[in-house]
Amino acid sequence: MGAGSPIGLADRWLAAALQTRIARGAVRLELWDGSIDYHGPFPAVGDMVVRDRGTLLGLLLHPNLYFGESYMASRLLVRGQLARVLEALSRTYPMTPKWHDHLTARLSRHNSIRASRRNVHHHYDLGNDFYQSWLDDQLVYTCAYFDTPDETLEEAQRAKLDLVCRKVRLQPGDTVIEAGCGWGALALHMARSYGVRVKAFNLSHEQIAFARARAVREGLAGRVEFIEDDYRNVTGQCDAFVSVGMLEHVGYKNYDHLSDVLSRVLRRDRGRGLLHFIGRDIPRPLNAWTRRRIFPGAYAPTLAEVATRIISPAGMSVLDVENLRLHYARTLAHWGQRFAGIEQQVRSRYGEQFWRAWELYLAASEAAFSTGHLQLFQIVFAPAESQPPYWKRADVYQPESPERWIAATR
Amino acid sequence: MGAGSPIGLADRWLAAALQTRIARGAVRLELWDGSIDYHGPFPAVGDMVVRDRGTLLGLLLHPNLYFGESYMASRLLVRGQLARVLEALSRTYPMTPKWHDHLTARLSRHNSIRASRRNVHHHYDLGNDFYQSWLDDQLVYTCAYFDTPDETLEEAQRAKLDLVCRKVRLQPGDTVIEAGCGWGALALHMARSYGVRVKAFNLSHEQIAFARARAVREGLAGRVEFIEDDYRNVTGQCDAFVSVGMLEHVGYKNYDHLSDVLSRVLRRDRGRGLLHFIGRDIPRPLNAWTRRRIFPGAYAPTLAEVATRIISPAGMSVLDVENLRLHYARTLAHWGQRFAGIEQQVRSRYGEQFWRAWELYLAASEAAFSTGHLQLFQIVFAPAESQPPYWKRADVYQPESPERWIAATR
Repeated sequence: MGAGSPIGLADRWLAAALQTRIARGAVRLELWDGSIDYHGPFPAVGDMVVRDRGTLLGLLLHPNLYFGESYMASRLLVRGQLARVLEALSRTYPMTPKWHDHLTARLSRHNSIRASRRNVHHHYDLGNDFYQSWLDDQLVYTCAYFDTPDETLEEAQRAKLDLVCRKVRLQPGDTVIEAGCGWGALALHMARSYGVRVKAFNLSHEQIAFARARAVREGLAGRVEFIEDDYRNVTGQCDAFVSVGMLEHVGYKNYDHLSDVLSRVLRRDRGRGLLHFIGRDIPRPLNAWTRRRIFPGAYAPTLAEVATRIISPAGMSVLDVENLRLHYARTLAHWGQRFAGIEQQVRSRYGEQFWRAWELYLAASEAAFSTGHLQLFQIVFAPAESQPPYWKRADVYQPESPERWIAATR
Repeated sequence: MGAGSPIGLADRWLAAALQTRIARGAVRLELWDGSIDYHGPFPAVGDMVVRDRGTLLGLLLHPNLYFGESYMASRLLVRGQLARVLEALSRTYPMTPKWHDHLTARLSRHNSIRASRRNVHHHYDLGNDFYQSWLDDQLVYTCAYFDTPDETLEEAQRAKLDLVCRKVRLQPGDTVIEAGCGWGALALHMARSYGVRVKAFNLSHEQIAFARARAVREGLAGRVEFIEDDYRNVTGQCDAFVSVGMLEHVGYKNYDHLSDVLSRVLRRDRGRGLLHFIGRDIPRPLNAWTRRRIFPGAYAPTLAEVATRIISPAGMSVLDVENLRLHYARTLAHWGQRFAGIEQQVRSRYGEQFWRAWELYLAASEAAFSTGHLQLFQIVFAPAESQPPYWKRADVYQPESPERWIAATR
């Protein structure tokens, strides 16, 4: 079996089955002998070129895993814009068959501190210079917030940092705990622009080292403490708790730990918190290939899972939820463009498979957010018995009215 | 047993048990012989005067029901500001014992169309002139939206109508379905100020008759159709679905019907919807007295219940959630003041018991929202595969920028 082997009757039959599914998305199938049997909409969005029989089978039986496996091994090629082809596919071709969903939905979501450390290392310790070569100038590796779709990535990441600070209504002198701080951009921004003191946690050794150097360089080391430890070991009390892009890595089975942390550290009288995370409309595992190759141990929860497993058991009320999925699609489009710009360096340093895996991961994520297969939620919450941090949410959007930031009174 | 009967040892013991619980809220207990045995914080917030032994027992065994029953029968009096005393009690004295919660949490939430009609009639057909004598000038009987806490009720109700319209981004020519339209204020506002066509449903005969007359008077009868029918009989398709203050009356067991309605009527390509409802942090029944005397069949759901039972099964994504509980506390304070202003008319027309029941209902609701025992959620949602109605939520708060209302583009 493989490239060059002659196409048999069984191959034709399998190919027809696959072509029928993807034709609805206007994607053409080409087999390893160059043959095409497409009668879908014209013009096609792009081509899927299948280079051997095993790939054809994998794409029919478990596309969720084998699309990615074949793509990174160059046994599956795509012609046309990768993100557009993936969007077309995800609208019409169920990448996750339902039986597989049910089988794996509740599995492999337990992350011990040790497993978490390994998972984090897998992705985030690829080298700071790797991420520096395609992220924004502040190294923010989460969904940005675009005032308008044509804003630059740098502007949009700064706007996101501000949005988070304003949603939890930071006040000078507040103490803040950040769980999962990346390279420290948000922690430093909070200390620099809002006059708060921050304890920021992260399991990634490389990221923490980078963040500490940055704090020293900016003269903020006295106000931001970067701690190389798990969020479960957070101690002390704080006025605000923020976590941007960590919940995906916590794993469903550990939600009660996070809930305990919240109820322990957030001040009951005036605390408020924000979780920013990749979510779902209905419970289902992340794409199998993404879990295998990109984010081991990751899970994107529904709003209801977060509310019932984390926020309510901590004695907190949900104050505000915003879905920013289109902003994540835009962010990923920026990342994809920048990543394409460093193709040669990445190929030569990390190899062809790595390049193809990351190209696919960025494009598939963009497609998932733009088609609504993934959501991006920001949830603001506060202890049930405390006053919400603002009289009305509209104040978050009025930077010229700081007097409105006064706590709600009757 | 009763007022005047001598206080025995058992009474003293029961009174001490009750006083211990409510002393933490600085509420004093006075028995039917005028005796007080209070050692709590000074000054006290107010007094609970218990006028007979049966009331004392009821307040210990099932306060959730007997506080209200005794209050409306004048067997329990309150000195001090009723809403403040109720706030103090609700912070310290669990009005609903947990065993009772579990017992009733999933019961009596099934409302057939016939039962719904009866439930609606019980509360909403008390006479339009009754509500006109204490609601705002537009007759809006749901949580208002106060730009600042000292705005008038009239201003705040108008602001709420606008907020709803802006959150679902009404455009001229849109078709709108409203489920549970009260006296028609929102439906008329949408047609008048946003140029849309509305079909508005309500089971209350008196309200529908009133709303129809209003539409004719305002020359809007051609654009707003008021339909005296259940939301389950909604037909057709619409660009926007709104329901303000109806979900509480739907009943948990009927959420799948509402979900079916949403998936049937909301256009998949560009529909968007809003549910505005009284909610909870954790699932529990409404106060037993409120269910018996004020809102038969009512249930205030959690965000998670609404997301998993209504929005997700309809194939919708949650785009935005706002918790406006302090705004409802403020609204209820206004209603309570206005209601106090018509005390003599209400007493003479409806009797003492009715007066006391409504006085309690308004004050207890204010207390529940101000202490966080009840929440007020507005949820915006849209079909999972469609584009969200705006690029960013901040645009809702920028009335000067209609060009931003253009559908999100990449």
